[in-house]
Amino acid sequence: MPYYISGVTADHNSLIARTPEEFRAKNSIDVRTRHRVTGIDADARRVMVADLEDGRESWMEYTVLLLATGASAFVPPVDGIGLEGCFTLRKLADSIAIKEFMKRRKPARAVVVGAGPVGLEMCESFRSVGLEVSLVEMADQVMPLIDADMASAVQEKLEAEGVKCFTGTRLEGIVGDTDAAVRAVATSSGELECDLALIGIGVRPVTDVAQQAGVELGAGGAIRVDARMRTNVPGIFAAGDCATTTNYITGEETWIPLGSTSRKQGRLAADNMFGADLAFPGVQGTSVVRCLDLTVGRTGLSESEAGGAGFEPETVRMEAESLHEYFPGGGLIRVKLVADRPSGRLLGAQVVGDLASTAEKRLDILAMAVGSGMTADDLQYADLAYAPPYSTAIDVPIIAANLLTGKLQGKPCSCNPFGLD
Amino acid sequence: MPYYISGVTADHNSLIARTPEEFRAKNSIDVRTRHRVTGIDADARRVMVADLEDGRESWMEYTVLLLATGASAFVPPVDGIGLEGCFTLRKLADSIAIKEFMKRRKPARAVVVGAGPVGLEMCESFRSVGLEVSLVEMADQVMPLIDADMASAVQEKLEAEGVKCFTGTRLEGIVGDTDAAVRAVATSSGELECDLALIGIGVRPVTDVAQQAGVELGAGGAIRVDARMRTNVPGIFAAGDCATTTNYITGEETWIPLGSTSRKQGRLAADNMFGADLAFPGVQGTSVVRCLDLTVGRTGLSESEAGGAGFEPETVRMEAESLHEYFPGGGLIRVKLVADRPSGRLLGAQVVGDLASTAEKRLDILAMAVGSGMTADDLQYADLAYAPPYSTAIDVPIIAANLLTGKLQGKPCSCNPFGLD
Repeated sequence: MPYYISGVTADHNSLIARTPEEFRAKNSIDVRTRHRVTGIDADARRVMVADLEDGRESWMEYTVLLLATGASAFVPPVDGIGLEGCFTLRKLADSIAIKEFMKRRKPARAVVVGAGPVGLEMCESFRSVGLEVSLVEMADQVMPLIDADMASAVQEKLEAEGVKCFTGTRLEGIVGDTDAAVRAVATSSGELECDLALIGIGVRPVTDVAQQAGVELGAGGAIRVDARMRTNVPGIFAAGDCATTTNYITGEETWIPLGSTSRKQGRLAADNMFGADLAFPGVQGTSVVRCLDLTVGRTGLSESEAGGAGFEPETVRMEAESLHEYFPGGGLIRVKLVADRPSGRLLGAQVVGDLASTAEKRLDILAMAVGSGMTADDLQYADLAYAPPYSTAIDVPIIAANLLTGKLQGKPCSCNPFGLD
Repeated sequence: MPYYISGVTADHNSLIARTPEEFRAKNSIDVRTRHRVTGIDADARRVMVADLEDGRESWMEYTVLLLATGASAFVPPVDGIGLEGCFTLRKLADSIAIKEFMKRRKPARAVVVGAGPVGLEMCESFRSVGLEVSLVEMADQVMPLIDADMASAVQEKLEAEGVKCFTGTRLEGIVGDTDAAVRAVATSSGELECDLALIGIGVRPVTDVAQQAGVELGAGGAIRVDARMRTNVPGIFAAGDCATTTNYITGEETWIPLGSTSRKQGRLAADNMFGADLAFPGVQGTSVVRCLDLTVGRTGLSESEAGGAGFEPETVRMEAESLHEYFPGGGLIRVKLVADRPSGRLLGAQVVGDLASTAEKRLDILAMAVGSGMTADDLQYADLAYAPPYSTAIDVPIIAANLLTGKLQGKPCSCNPFGLD
């Protein structure tokens, strides 16, 4: 949706993966939009459904029920949220409304509240169409999903591209002018004047109908499911952004709503609802975001998360060019690796790279290393694909593993990326 | 070097990673170029060294000796190899000679013999500077490192870009004109007229001095080393393109000379020569090449290799766009996965993708999956980094794993990349 707002994606209809008509024609699936489930009678295995067009309610029976209610944008309890020009961005309708507002009102200044993935994408989106942008974040750093020592490069980039960053700053309210349109965002760092406010401070699982049916909640207030995507109520499954999962690095229940996870859970839940017995292994918290010519991503545990989960984190941070000097077109990649000191096991990794560096490749390599339980020592010998257009002969993840192995063994590394010094 | 010949890399000096002067100044390492070792006295731990400038020979003593003699271009035993305009491409001097020849003689037509990685890179290189190119390959397909059903896409691309492909064609000789310059390449498909011939049919390990010292050879005629990079002769190590290694998928000794492997072996050999006890785990045969806007790569075993190694290969082949339809800039990726039917273990993967598809990312993801011993089932749940600029919500390797898992379980897959049909 940020790319629809900036015009990278021209038609919002292309954002719809499948229409109700396609479901019907191709798969004989009866999709009812503009219908709301208002209650679940789990004993009788039926749901009460309200037709939003005519208001009529009726019972629909089920054999198995999937709760795929997703998550909705968190709206903070401050004044002025309802003013014209104040938006969240979660549903397709939100992006259409923002785009329509921008066309009609031609805002010059935007304030983005929240420096997580959605906030960063919207900073890029607004800058790319010429708006002045201020970014407000409650934490002391942008992109709190990564450690501060990596996030600093993101903040530098934002500021270099003209985004004013207000970290450690709390949202206090949205301020309107006489015609009920946004005039400023009130924060603990003062009033930031703007014509458009975008609140991107996270999402919450949608669980109201589930709760009413006695479905138990878990981490993050999401619907608690087991590895088979079953809730505590017989016959009721849940999957996607409304459901919990397991972090297989810590072994703990977690809630990390992401499209990539939702798709996997949805497939598996469907198979199990029709008799299979598949177990979803969980997630390791991999995510990536593009922001202003930077690729910013993480997988596994950050340094602070690793400490919090009872590991003894050892880390290494480095930067290197993605290609040999003689080959044009590369870019700078910054990598941080986190390992467990006693075992050497890789716990997590973070990357911040120029878009041209294809840092996302290194992130996925590291995600595979973390997910498969490799140690830093193991990763040194990964047999990756080398040719000059794609990487250096020893790619950045391996150099980082060399450095981290040296550190874990308490000896200076015999070789660093910058030579033999 | 292909990129220096085409001008992508402007200065051949940038291809020199370190000069003798840098070694001396930074590391106090005495590097002697223009010196040849003519004999090894392993009992006395000394080598006979000839100074090529003045022809004088003298003994140099060693405590430990590393044979890092590399590999040299294989020169086939046919007539005309010495003609002007007939080249191999292995040493920096080769690329300088080719470039100088092209500048001076302005060739219009090149014949490339060998459709492996070097041959494919040189097809791109010669086409990019406007030469007519014919490609001669003894096998029935281009790029014999990958299976024929994947290589066909490479041949289509070569032909679409004007490269005439002669597969199943044997080199019979190089034909000269009156002034001893190349006029044609004689093949089993007839004489191919040209002004320049490039022979790229592989390399052979350089082992003459090693053999003379009683060092045992192994796979591919390379110097046999154990995991610690020791030869059978006490005090003598070997590493890099002259040395064998283990394929850790088959468990067998192999010889796959690649820069990425050489660097890892070199580091490890150096550590062991100074008292460490590190074991090199081996390789899985990962490689990649760019050719004419295609990325072509492989990891692990091909289908035919898997069968030959005693596995019972099951495969899946698919193609998909690298990005969602609504996001510009992606490209087509073709993937083939090979698994062992009884265990489901992934044995290998091949990719052929448009340059824009960053197929090399999927190749490295698959290399990590194969290298860590994942099954096709495991790979379905890899937690990869998704955002619209980088991949589809379920990235191509996972879709391929979905399809292969369905095939291994003998049931139609519930979901394919093109929808729910």
